[in-house]
Amino acid sequence: MRFARLGPVGAEIPVVWDEGQAFDLRLITADIGGEFLASDPVAAVRTALDAETLPVVGDAGALRVGAPIARPSAVYCIGMNYAAHAAESGSAPPENMVMFMKAPNTVVGPDDDIPIPRGSVKTDWEVELGIVIGARASYLESTDDASAHIAGYVIANDLSERDWQIAVSGGQWSKGKSAPSFCPLGPWLVTPDEVHAEDVRLRSWVNGESRQDSRTSDLIFGIDRIVWELSQHLALEPGDLILTGTPEGVALSGRFPYLAPGDVVELEIDGLGRQRQNYVAG
Amino acid sequence: MRFARLGPVGAEIPVVWDEGQAFDLRLITADIGGEFLASDPVAAVRTALDAETLPVVGDAGALRVGAPIARPSAVYCIGMNYAAHAAESGSAPPENMVMFMKAPNTVVGPDDDIPIPRGSVKTDWEVELGIVIGARASYLESTDDASAHIAGYVIANDLSERDWQIAVSGGQWSKGKSAPSFCPLGPWLVTPDEVHAEDVRLRSWVNGESRQDSRTSDLIFGIDRIVWELSQHLALEPGDLILTGTPEGVALSGRFPYLAPGDVVELEIDGLGRQRQNYVAG
Repeated sequence: MRFARLGPVGAEIPVVWDEGQAFDLRLITADIGGEFLASDPVAAVRTALDAETLPVVGDAGALRVGAPIARPSAVYCIGMNYAAHAAESGSAPPENMVMFMKAPNTVVGPDDDIPIPRGSVKTDWEVELGIVIGARASYLESTDDASAHIAGYVIANDLSERDWQIAVSGGQWSKGKSAPSFCPLGPWLVTPDEVHAEDVRLRSWVNGESRQDSRTSDLIFGIDRIVWELSQHLALEPGDLILTGTPEGVALSGRFPYLAPGDVVELEIDGLGRQRQNYVAG
Repeated sequence: MRFARLGPVGAEIPVVWDEGQAFDLRLITADIGGEFLASDPVAAVRTALDAETLPVVGDAGALRVGAPIARPSAVYCIGMNYAAHAAESGSAPPENMVMFMKAPNTVVGPDDDIPIPRGSVKTDWEVELGIVIGARASYLESTDDASAHIAGYVIANDLSERDWQIAVSGGQWSKGKSAPSFCPLGPWLVTPDEVHAEDVRLRSWVNGESRQDSRTSDLIFGIDRIVWELSQHLALEPGDLILTGTPEGVALSGRFPYLAPGDVVELEIDGLGRQRQNYVAG
């Protein structure tokens, strides 16, 4: 099942895409957030679709695409989680899982214009598989318990300002991860039954040129391990977002220029859709 | 003016303390969060107090004290911001301001029982001055603009699990900063007219023995500088919380044992009240 949120910023309508049409979910939920995701949404929506009680959203393709989930209570990010990206960043693959956080107000729609932050000279892209939590997860007993706590998957661009993240950060990365609009998300939240997230291809392009092209099967710490380990250190809540790390092919490698106004970034993950962002002066 | 939230977890009543009585604010606001704090709350509450339209909360002293603000959209933390604490942690004072984040769901009341996380052997206290944002702050022109964006100040205990923060983190601290209940806050949100936050004494005790005793005038990066600099890198929102850093006297120094079930931690900042937490098995 593919959930989405369509319409102007702050007034998005929750929908489900089914057979090429967007069905308005407001008879079932006001928004696609933690409460809805914790309520066995697939069963309720399937029943409503079968009963044909959900109105079709007319001209849905003309509406702005918002982030497919309401603002999360937290955005957890796993760092250096592909060996080749660790190498291009000048690091060895991590022995321990690395976690940092982004400000939740960075989450925007997948095709929104992105302002290059004022003063930034090193704005960088990162295509990532995002995990959306569907049930509170605290002290899970084993990695086998992780999947029952996952509502679905999204594409995310974990945008970074590398000087702020590294050169002037004193070593803590969040300063360079939290600028306004630094987390384009979506277009869809895809439920686990529709995507084999453990092995999908993820790619990015800048101005039509390939940048990243890898598979989630190369993750050092996999999906279930991430959810299990985070649950040992903190409480994951329904609607929370976890970005799982980016593969090689970012500007930090030195192989490509950083982003500037006028650039176009596209990102795609098989089964999760595609993003396209214009970069503008901040 | 001193705002507070009283009552059971999840059902706190917003109040203002005035002349030893707690006045119920629900005629003015449903909660003490971003919307209320952005609305010039002091003027509205002063008018209502003078007009005697606010009901007194009977037996307020018997109610649980909640965090004085609703859950923030983000908790930003400044690291190594007192020179003597940097030294006891084995670091030089930072040249650049260090920022990391805590999960917002760590915020609890100032006197709530705190579970030592399962598997933790290095749970540590940190008394800190907290800044609560009152107006959206993005690209402030100078440090002089900071004060207009501050709603008030709180005491916070920036609890830390040092192994998770340092030994198994790969260098990013958030893993050891986000366990459930790791941010006791309050008892009060004190507005800037009632406290000279730039120079107040902040202290902590464990089982009645002094641990930390410093003044905010020793901050390396001061209040206005913190708000101004964060606004260059991200957008602060009304109701957001910034923890400004902790002075020397924590267990990480090696001079004191880490916390264990049965311990009692107290924290005090002049003019901002006092916290008292019992530590229990998690």
